[in-house]
Amino acid sequence: MRIDIISVLPELMTGFFSASIIKRAVDKNAVEVHLHNLRDWSFNKHRQVDDEPYGGGAGMVMMVEPLDRCITDLKAKVQYDEVIYLTPEGVPLKQKIVNTLSLRQNLLLICGHYKGIDQRIRDMHVTMEISVGDYVLTGGELAACVLADAVIRLLPGVLNDEQSALTDSFQDDLLAPPIYTRPSDYKGFKVPEILLSGNDSKIDEWRYEKALEITKNKRPDLLQE
Amino acid sequence: MRIDIISVLPELMTGFFSASIIKRAVDKNAVEVHLHNLRDWSFNKHRQVDDEPYGGGAGMVMMVEPLDRCITDLKAKVQYDEVIYLTPEGVPLKQKIVNTLSLRQNLLLICGHYKGIDQRIRDMHVTMEISVGDYVLTGGELAACVLADAVIRLLPGVLNDEQSALTDSFQDDLLAPPIYTRPSDYKGFKVPEILLSGNDSKIDEWRYEKALEITKNKRPDLLQE
Repeated sequence: MRIDIISVLPELMTGFFSASIIKRAVDKNAVEVHLHNLRDWSFNKHRQVDDEPYGGGAGMVMMVEPLDRCITDLKAKVQYDEVIYLTPEGVPLKQKIVNTLSLRQNLLLICGHYKGIDQRIRDMHVTMEISVGDYVLTGGELAACVLADAVIRLLPGVLNDEQSALTDSFQDDLLAPPIYTRPSDYKGFKVPEILLSGNDSKIDEWRYEKALEITKNKRPDLLQE
Repeated sequence: MRIDIISVLPELMTGFFSASIIKRAVDKNAVEVHLHNLRDWSFNKHRQVDDEPYGGGAGMVMMVEPLDRCITDLKAKVQYDEVIYLTPEGVPLKQKIVNTLSLRQNLLLICGHYKGIDQRIRDMHVTMEISVGDYVLTGGELAACVLADAVIRLLPGVLNDEQSALTDSFQDDLLAPPIYTRPSDYKGFKVPEILLSGNDSKIDEWRYEKALEITKNKRPDLLQE
């Protein structure tokens, strides 16, 4: 997979893509991540990429021309399956969308900043708008990292068996059951007996019941989907 | 405000907290962010912080003892308003929760990794569990950055007038209307006439109608809350 990310603050993401599981995925060639500084496509000497909104109001708007030039240049080299704009106005990201995107070859992500991007970029280029949650961030960079992280960990060879994604929350529409490790008694807080029993089928049953109970209590909406 | 973050991979977050608006918030003393490496509280020479789950199954579990030691040490120095565990099993983060947390003094965030933390830490210390969305990440670090970013930008003095948070999506339960900046005609894609009219009350009306229309189309659930 190849992921291109356009941003006015690519340096905000470099640390993330050069650490941990994501770094290993890059090292193993499971994914290529290319960060692009939008200012490189600015057309004036101040490297300007934002301007005041038509109609007035607070906040700056990311200009149509640098973004159009950048996206057009990238599209000339790579055929993207999706051009994704990260925005609170997008479709709420769910694990099912992540699963689907993990099967694509090339993704182009656009990070908004300031009040967002000129609407015409959305009309001209964007094929998918995604929101990572119902809250506002200082920019789309963290949202792009979230999307990339969720997708990359599903690529073949990135997680080892010990980290298997199959028992994750949401993969079966249930939240995960409680987990415990040694010691079995810590300051009087004990591990449930059943987990020490060695009875695998009883343990599976307990875990399923706990997962169902937690989901019913905390997120009944997940059971209705 | 003071935010403490416990993680096995603090280096994944350093870049983020030393860039952009968040860095400025730190420089202006609007917030102090302290990253803690959980391994510093490990009790053996291998700096072990995870172990196999009781009852078997894939994935490692973050051990109760290093976390308990770390949290107890931090609590001895700082009185936390909330001890927050970032987990897909938590309450879905919404802007209203962000607004509330931005009024607190001291927050302690715990980043899960591997399959998550020993349940007993949740029982002993955690006062709030938050999920940044219905998807699974490689670890809680990005989720902690998301939460911190959303909260910090609301602190007094962090955003300037140009970036005012008052017109953000979600602050009024509506998604933001389309925005445009110069030029008014780009490759035949034109800015709506009304925004060029100079008639402020008509513009406000248009923006409100667009925001309502977009919210109805894309996120009718927001209007029902």
